[in-house]
Amino acid sequence: MLPFKNLLLIDKNSSTAVFRQIASQLVLLIQKGILLPEMELPSTRSLAADLGLHRKTVMAAYNDLIAEDWVESEQRKGYRISALLPIIKPRSYTNNNSLTGYQGSADFLFDRLDHIPSLPVISPGFKLIVNDGFPETAIFPIEKVLKEYRKLLGHNVLKKSAASWDVGGSASFKEALHSFLNETRGLNIRPENLMITRGAQMAIYIAAALILKPGDQVLVSDPGYAIADAAFRQLGAELIRVPVDNDGMDIAAVETVLKTKKIKLLYIIPHHHHPTTVTLSSARRTKLLELIRTYQLAVIEDDYDYDFQYQYSPYLPLASGEHDGNVIYIGSLTKVLGAPFRLGYMISTADFLYSAVKLKSLIDLRTDVLMEGAIGAMISSGEFSRHIKKANKLYGARCDYGVGLISSELSNCIDLTKPQGGMALWLRFKEDFPVAKIISKASEMGLRLTGSAWHKGNSLKHNGLRFGFASLSETDIEFAVAVLKKITA
Amino acid sequence: MLPFKNLLLIDKNSSTAVFRQIASQLVLLIQKGILLPEMELPSTRSLAADLGLHRKTVMAAYNDLIAEDWVESEQRKGYRISALLPIIKPRSYTNNNSLTGYQGSADFLFDRLDHIPSLPVISPGFKLIVNDGFPETAIFPIEKVLKEYRKLLGHNVLKKSAASWDVGGSASFKEALHSFLNETRGLNIRPENLMITRGAQMAIYIAAALILKPGDQVLVSDPGYAIADAAFRQLGAELIRVPVDNDGMDIAAVETVLKTKKIKLLYIIPHHHHPTTVTLSSARRTKLLELIRTYQLAVIEDDYDYDFQYQYSPYLPLASGEHDGNVIYIGSLTKVLGAPFRLGYMISTADFLYSAVKLKSLIDLRTDVLMEGAIGAMISSGEFSRHIKKANKLYGARCDYGVGLISSELSNCIDLTKPQGGMALWLRFKEDFPVAKIISKASEMGLRLTGSAWHKGNSLKHNGLRFGFASLSETDIEFAVAVLKKITA
Repeated sequence: MLPFKNLLLIDKNSSTAVFRQIASQLVLLIQKGILLPEMELPSTRSLAADLGLHRKTVMAAYNDLIAEDWVESEQRKGYRISALLPIIKPRSYTNNNSLTGYQGSADFLFDRLDHIPSLPVISPGFKLIVNDGFPETAIFPIEKVLKEYRKLLGHNVLKKSAASWDVGGSASFKEALHSFLNETRGLNIRPENLMITRGAQMAIYIAAALILKPGDQVLVSDPGYAIADAAFRQLGAELIRVPVDNDGMDIAAVETVLKTKKIKLLYIIPHHHHPTTVTLSSARRTKLLELIRTYQLAVIEDDYDYDFQYQYSPYLPLASGEHDGNVIYIGSLTKVLGAPFRLGYMISTADFLYSAVKLKSLIDLRTDVLMEGAIGAMISSGEFSRHIKKANKLYGARCDYGVGLISSELSNCIDLTKPQGGMALWLRFKEDFPVAKIISKASEMGLRLTGSAWHKGNSLKHNGLRFGFASLSETDIEFAVAVLKKITA
Repeated sequence: MLPFKNLLLIDKNSSTAVFRQIASQLVLLIQKGILLPEMELPSTRSLAADLGLHRKTVMAAYNDLIAEDWVESEQRKGYRISALLPIIKPRSYTNNNSLTGYQGSADFLFDRLDHIPSLPVISPGFKLIVNDGFPETAIFPIEKVLKEYRKLLGHNVLKKSAASWDVGGSASFKEALHSFLNETRGLNIRPENLMITRGAQMAIYIAAALILKPGDQVLVSDPGYAIADAAFRQLGAELIRVPVDNDGMDIAAVETVLKTKKIKLLYIIPHHHHPTTVTLSSARRTKLLELIRTYQLAVIEDDYDYDFQYQYSPYLPLASGEHDGNVIYIGSLTKVLGAPFRLGYMISTADFLYSAVKLKSLIDLRTDVLMEGAIGAMISSGEFSRHIKKANKLYGARCDYGVGLISSELSNCIDLTKPQGGMALWLRFKEDFPVAKIISKASEMGLRLTGSAWHKGNSLKHNGLRFGFASLSETDIEFAVAVLKKITA
């Protein structure tokens, strides 16, 4: 008889009933080939004594195993492992102390995906973390959002949401959001032109996955948004890079490429380009719209932080121009609300959205009806717009302060052009100041700079760093600049 | 001079400032080629008079346009459209009353995706909706979840979440969930074997996308889970179907296929298979584990409603057996918590998860830290397990009641085997009672049956209907059975 006293480990403090623990562990022993078909099991009395348990507990375990066909009970003869189980070669359980095989022995092939940049891992203990450009959480209307959640988390809403399958977003949220977008972006869309996603990223992935086939060529900017670039590559596309200068993506260069290559898709961030923060000039916008119509070019317009424009009144998106339906407009509410609120969207023709919603159903079967309900109510009440106004005022001032201080204190090592909006500055370090070194030294001084670590593992060569100012107080900015000054002195 | 009074529509109730409305609309007119380069604009005084506005408002609009290079101001000569803009052929604005091109004229190619099943759209006004198998919302611990949200929605949590990039789930949630899974499923995983996703669906898609290349062959069941099947097809795979009987997927048939074909992946739901609700027998489980080791076969084990097993104590997942790391185990908390709480997960080797997290970053850059925080706290406090216990008791009783009533009242038209767990019954209608007709007639009588509409648009031929009992009271079940009895009498 096997040493069941040692084989079966009972945890009386576990939330799993003891008899279930016994049954589960016996099944494992069978699956491992330690208990073989037709092998006898100890009597309930003897096993109970061995384990210091009541006999009824062991009986309950055995009864479960009988019901599951693992064990047979022979009248007056006791219990034995079912004879019907296929014979398994016994393995020494000491060879593999793990209950599972999740130790990396998997033999099947899968993609390694080393081309996708690693995102920064933040260890605790830094005095200040400068992010890639995220909102100030101190002004977030927490109480108002909570009030909406409280209203929504009722049985009726939960019940209703179980029966509905609004893969592309709930009707009421799309209604509220489409009005907001029409008012703020010079669009004239209907709710059926709108699909809700988990952040802009899911919208980029879905749009690209519908359009791209392996081997297709995609026009992107240089430098560009690394996560979008990686998505296009993951889908098998080849990236054709076009330079970005102070007026945005070089549209003349785009035209040159279009004349010679068969381009399947253009990806562009016209407002506050990532990572460089530049805005596409009016002349280039107009020219690009012309090219879109001439070449019937599919375009993903990523307008992730349109809502934050400080210097001038907003440039309108390409999507508000004449593009014959070729511009897929993608945006995000996350930049307004903060990282935990991942609400993105895609705007396109009803035809394209039909397919986009279908593809989305394979990736994320339902949207977040609670978040949509809460934020939809804030949009309808005007609270959302008021928050944007408040944030713009704060961020505009912080932008000014950051640009002023960096320009005056760090001009020896940094080139900086003030962005027209957004939440980050693009610090171009001069050649003698390699960014990787600066990040590492700053880290030792309590300053964690995460706004360029995005680019770890990607092939772009630049010596720049995104400095997310929106969430930094003047004191924070002063601290960061002081550290950088010390490092670069 | 153009009739600006008619071209510019000012909405004084809009949340967009009037001067911005004017500026935006003038840009649109430029982009449409209605206002051409070097064209003169009306004076601020005259346009203000035309529109019934203060002159300063118009000046603010013009100043914005000048800052954006759309308009030039010539001293003492007034304002004109910038000469630098590329010339655009004028179009009559009456040809296209829409401000955008989202009218379906897009000329680029994209996948139609007609192979993906359409999900049911539920119009209001039904007396009862029978779903595919979702939890009873009346027992959901709303107050406890709200309390957690209230605790979490503070500045510190929001601030922390902005700086962190836990693509695969927050550390604290993975810590809580991995313990729960080890305790309940006979697993022995570490947090690094776990990735959090938006529901099980995202985990299925990501796992399949890492493994499958176009042309690869995937073993699935017949009938099978339509949304997973569609995902494999979308990724270019060919489906090889193996029958399902009362003991689950036919593993002998699986072996036959493995002997002759190069199978890249097997997809299986061992507990409460979708749609048929059958559970894989012990003998077949053991045999399948043997095949997995022999063929080093990659397996997606979809165990979406493991937590609900009524008849016996749980069968353990394949993942708890010896599989050399080849089983990717996928589950969901949504079936416990309800549709709005989309928390799924993938368990695999650390190696596979490295790639899975990378791919996830392209699809959904961050997890829902609020939901993870709230539900993680419920898992740690034991509230989650208590809720499962409560739900199991209720669902078990409802399952009994439903099976009893349907067996006694509808045996003329329905074959039914009582499932060992889960949230739905699989009603196999006899040939004379086509399901499509029954759904349509029931609908007229106030009963909306959604548990088979999943299959609309897919190629599976069966005459079955999923009857989600978990969310139905005895009165609900009685109503549904009465309607079905009337229809099939």
